[in-house]
Amino acid sequence: MKAARLHAYDQPLALDELDEPRATGPLDVVVRIGAAGLCRTDLHIQEGQWAEKSGVALPYTLGHENAGWVHEVGSAVSNVEVGDTVIVHPYISCGLCRPCRRGDDMHCVNGSFPGIDRDGGFADLLLTHARSVIKLDPRLEPKDIAALADAGLTAIHAVKKAAPMLGAGTRTVVIGAGGLGHIGIQCLKALTPTEIIVIDPSDKALGLARDVGADQAVKVDGTQVDTVRQLTDGLGAEVILDFVGEKGAIQDGIAMVQDGGFYHVIGYGENVDIPTIDVISREISFIGNLVGTYTDLEDLMTLTAEGKVRLHTSTYPLEAINDAMADLDQGRLQGRGILVPAG
Amino acid sequence: MKAARLHAYDQPLALDELDEPRATGPLDVVVRIGAAGLCRTDLHIQEGQWAEKSGVALPYTLGHENAGWVHEVGSAVSNVEVGDTVIVHPYISCGLCRPCRRGDDMHCVNGSFPGIDRDGGFADLLLTHARSVIKLDPRLEPKDIAALADAGLTAIHAVKKAAPMLGAGTRTVVIGAGGLGHIGIQCLKALTPTEIIVIDPSDKALGLARDVGADQAVKVDGTQVDTVRQLTDGLGAEVILDFVGEKGAIQDGIAMVQDGGFYHVIGYGENVDIPTIDVISREISFIGNLVGTYTDLEDLMTLTAEGKVRLHTSTYPLEAINDAMADLDQGRLQGRGILVPAG
Amino acid sequence: MKAARLHAYDQPLALDELDEPRATGPLDVVVRIGAAGLCRTDLHIQEGQWAEKSGVALPYTLGHENAGWVHEVGSAVSNVEVGDTVIVHPYISCGLCRPCRRGDDMHCVNGSFPGIDRDGGFADLLLTHARSVIKLDPRLEPKDIAALADAGLTAIHAVKKAAPMLGAGTRTVVIGAGGLGHIGIQCLKALTPTEIIVIDPSDKALGLARDVGADQAVKVDGTQVDTVRQLTDGLGAEVILDFVGEKGAIQDGIAMVQDGGFYHVIGYGENVDIPTIDVISREISFIGNLVGTYTDLEDLMTLTAEGKVRLHTSTYPLEAINDAMADLDQGRLQGRGILVPAG
Amino acid sequence: MKAARLHAYDQPLALDELDEPRATGPLDVVVRIGAAGLCRTDLHIQEGQWAEKSGVALPYTLGHENAGWVHEVGSAVSNVEVGDTVIVHPYISCGLCRPCRRGDDMHCVNGSFPGIDRDGGFADLLLTHARSVIKLDPRLEPKDIAALADAGLTAIHAVKKAAPMLGAGTRTVVIGAGGLGHIGIQCLKALTPTEIIVIDPSDKALGLARDVGADQAVKVDGTQVDTVRQLTDGLGAEVILDFVGEKGAIQDGIAMVQDGGFYHVIGYGENVDIPTIDVISREISFIGNLVGTYTDLEDLMTLTAEGKVRLHTSTYPLEAINDAMADLDQGRLQGRGILVPAG
Repeated sequence: MKAARLHAYDQPLALDELDEPRATGPLDVVVRIGAAGLCRTDLHIQEGQWAEKSGVALPYTLGHENAGWVHEVGSAVSNVEVGDTVIVHPYISCGLCRPCRRGDDMHCVNGSFPGIDRDGGFADLLLTHARSVIKLDPRLEPKDIAALADAGLTAIHAVKKAAPMLGAGTRTVVIGAGGLGHIGIQCLKALTPTEIIVIDPSDKALGLARDVGADQAVKVDGTQVDTVRQLTDGLGAEVILDFVGEKGAIQDGIAMVQDGGFYHVIGYGENVDIPTIDVISREISFIGNLVGTYTDLEDLMTLTAEGKVRLHTSTYPLEAINDAMADLDQGRLQGRGILVPAG
Repeated sequence: MKAARLHAYDQPLALDELDEPRATGPLDVVVRIGAAGLCRTDLHIQEGQWAEKSGVALPYTLGHENAGWVHEVGSAVSNVEVGDTVIVHPYISCGLCRPCRRGDDMHCVNGSFPGIDRDGGFADLLLTHARSVIKLDPRLEPKDIAALADAGLTAIHAVKKAAPMLGAGTRTVVIGAGGLGHIGIQCLKALTPTEIIVIDPSDKALGLARDVGADQAVKVDGTQVDTVRQLTDGLGAEVILDFVGEKGAIQDGIAMVQDGGFYHVIGYGENVDIPTIDVISREISFIGNLVGTYTDLEDLMTLTAEGKVRLHTSTYPLEAINDAMADLDQGRLQGRGILVPAG
Repeated sequence: MKAARLHAYDQPLALDELDEPRATGPLDVVVRIGAAGLCRTDLHIQEGQWAEKSGVALPYTLGHENAGWVHEVGSAVSNVEVGDTVIVHPYISCGLCRPCRRGDDMHCVNGSFPGIDRDGGFADLLLTHARSVIKLDPRLEPKDIAALADAGLTAIHAVKKAAPMLGAGTRTVVIGAGGLGHIGIQCLKALTPTEIIVIDPSDKALGLARDVGADQAVKVDGTQVDTVRQLTDGLGAEVILDFVGEKGAIQDGIAMVQDGGFYHVIGYGENVDIPTIDVISREISFIGNLVGTYTDLEDLMTLTAEGKVRLHTSTYPLEAINDAMADLDQGRLQGRGILVPAG
Repeated sequence: MKAARLHAYDQPLALDELDEPRATGPLDVVVRIGAAGLCRTDLHIQEGQWAEKSGVALPYTLGHENAGWVHEVGSAVSNVEVGDTVIVHPYISCGLCRPCRRGDDMHCVNGSFPGIDRDGGFADLLLTHARSVIKLDPRLEPKDIAALADAGLTAIHAVKKAAPMLGAGTRTVVIGAGGLGHIGIQCLKALTPTEIIVIDPSDKALGLARDVGADQAVKVDGTQVDTVRQLTDGLGAEVILDFVGEKGAIQDGIAMVQDGGFYHVIGYGENVDIPTIDVISREISFIGNLVGTYTDLEDLMTLTAEGKVRLHTSTYPLEAINDAMADLDQGRLQGRGILVPAG
């Protein structure tokens, strides 16, 4: 089969011909990829930022945001059958360790992450596990929902963690209305009554934010902190969802969060750097967010089926992976980029 | 009356003679001070660290950790009577704003903080409010419990916020077994089944930690991170309670917290400074802590009455306030310092 | 002033001439009634069902659902001024006891309940307290929002208690789309993503339910349990909100709740009567609901200001109170009945 | 192998010779039984109370509280090996349905319950599943811990559900200090600071209650309601844990629970029967409890390893099963009855 693989850091991916993976374990599932989303993390991997954390050996296949159809199943798989349309949870968890048993899949102590530390879905076929597939309505097209497997999952996970603080009369600032942010806005709208204030430097992104449910859209032009404080009675917002994590986002976010409030770190790039006297005198908290659980992904598929979440995407053939990565890197990609194998 | 007042930053306090405060408002309460605790924050105030945050005009009376007997009450006070022994919650809240109505006193939008932004309790008498006094058993001595009004309150507030994560089989690292830390250990022991691991550079402090309930006492000598990771199956602890916030505590704490865990910032001094990629890939959270609520103080008085929390203190006459502050600054003060007016 | 008072159980109310109440305490507030809602509980009081529970001495003035304008304030009132439009929280709480300090007003140990155990709002003026009034936009008409003070408050309180169980993909059965139920449906819609299934014997009520947001409207005609189980994959709903509590509602609700689910008791009349073997083998819970807190009422006023909650009412002059009560008793009253004093 | 089987309701069990079960599925685990606890539910099964609910076909082997050593494992089992000492979670759950994925094993939609609806552990060998075994310290004796697999698990599950309401200064009434109750008291002591008030008609049981941590032991002699109300400032207790569910326990418990409080239904026999006007005017809740999750059982094993939970048991050879059941039925059995196969 064809697979887009990284052979060396800071180099383009190569389209290699590989043996097809097989479902040799009783709970293995092989998925024929219908579509695979492209993520800024793929650029970070190519740049070597994850080399030490993942410990992966090169070459390997990228792609951690996958959907398609079941191609082969192990002997004990009972939740899907060959031919089923599925979305693939990005993590493979054991189901037996303590975090798995309490439903906290992402902290499985025996887990692996296709596309990060083993072969991923920029390929015709992906080897995954019964615990990582969700059966979908056969009328769904993989290219229309693949980006929910990671971008969408990360956004809904953050929103679900914030939701208990987001009652009537509260305000949430969404920093960044891009690939994750525009899903986050829709999840906030579907799950909470909070007033949604979006900040972004791009008029186009702010337009999209309004279309998908933002109550206020504020341009990042140097006056955004004052504007947001005016919109929040001078107090700031109960919750910040920062989908950017760099380029001034963090200092803005700290200036916009209410005393006693919660700053959710989702995008990454720079440092959180704040005097402890401010953390304690304002009693603010910084909450990390890592992708999401299997039940988070089920929830997101429900919201999508109800029409409450819609994706904006651009499609490329798998062979054009390096073009797609260049477009993402240089800001030419509208919505989430989706790779489609020749099939 | 006598009061110890700050006339200029970086100067000793002066023992001034002032008019006695009166209960002119219907819910005012004047307390005859039996004892007032000395806090590291008093040193920070003297150094000017709080000047901008508090906006207080000099001169004013320090002392935010107070207990004594009711001296005079306003016309509408119904919860205490003249002569009652009371501990004084450090904050004066309005009772009518939204945070007050949900029980979150410390974020009252109309509040004031005696000893921080108005006259405090290093004096014969303190003007406070019906909402800030808790009636105690008359057999209690103010000097034995005054330090619970701020040091103890801060410790129990942090422990109560952490407690929902602290089930059977979890581990908590307490950084610092000093004035706050030794109460925090006792609150953890009383409220949760977590295993308590205490780190401190002082053998004497570690001995105290063991006496009041630590399961493990680890010396800060350069090997503490490795030792704690060994004690936690290589995973780190679910919760860090950092009562220090400087001198390497923060980097130690980040290295000791489990993926998915919670780092509570209580002591202050230096910065939290961490790459966002670590915050998200480990999904760790930093939780601010600001003193505590009235119900937190009631809970602490209950634990004290049940013998589950005990204080270690050193007593000084109010006139010796500058000696006490020098002893605290130079590490000569054992336990919490307590000022007692001539009365 | 005029007041509609109960002189004897099972007798009509009398329109009496009374002295006007005065704000003699420092936190007293006298409200000129603009409108007072009529509640099924007023019928139950007239029938003597609350005589023993309330311990009230006859005669007294009914009316526990009030809105109007501030007429006089005590010396220490700071949150409202004479002339302000206000809605009146139905309970007078002390603000100092433990339940009050944690925001749980309804369980104040020193509280009183105008219209239940002291003079209420079927009158020109009502004596209440600073803690019981919420200042509103002066353009609001008391007759348009008075019914939120009790019917609406009870509905939102129940919905807020249920909301943590009501994520994406869950189902809620609302039993009864009357005065409380039609507000409950709107609160569910505003605060949660749950699918809302309403059951009611009246086609008119089901039409109203659909208009205000029900996803499914099921007629109570003997087949309702089967229909609801079909709509819930044979499992039943995660949550039942029972606004009826009599006439078969309870047995229906128990048959419709999912194993592991929550049955909220809001309407009253008959008994919850269920074998403990069913409670444990199905792990179902029954949750009592008593009106709501001050912050619940603030939340409801926010949703109303945002246009997310609207009331259906019928207005009567205060003098027609006995006609209004007869209409309510005999099912002739559309929406919530509202009494308006001559003013 | 030998197995104690029920051939007809209301008849003694028969000691049959059966084929040994085999681990034919990849995640199957066969456990050699070291000890199996006897439960009042075994009597209820024999009496036919569960016939309709379980739908089990006779004959079958009873015994749902098991511990022993791993005898055989399926090809994909990774968490235990042959020879390991294990305690057996009583339920077999699929690991793939929505309740399983959020950690709520007991509501698995594909589950089965050995000893209730399929062959249980009153036998030499038991067929279970990788998800149902917890590996233990090999020095532990199955007879010393088997009763934790159901009695203990049910008790800790109820205590963990109640714990968020059980802060400092709260009171809990434990109804019944028998097999479950004496473990519940120890779990309350280990996990919460609540004051524990135990009621029981037996002086011996009250003595045991005091030995394992009860703060107050109150005899059920007709004055128990008044005594408990006096011990709780006339308010009643925040939480009731009812391990009895019959013989007057329910009416006692309702009279002893504080307004706003929680009544946990654990023991079963009679009906919860209460007017809805009492449920709402007192805002009390009734919480069902069904055994417990895998993580609950892990927590309990941790508390046992720490010496915080100890069991009182009486041992019988498996052949004496009918004697043991008669002793339990007639109140002659001290502590939990434990059956030990000849092995």
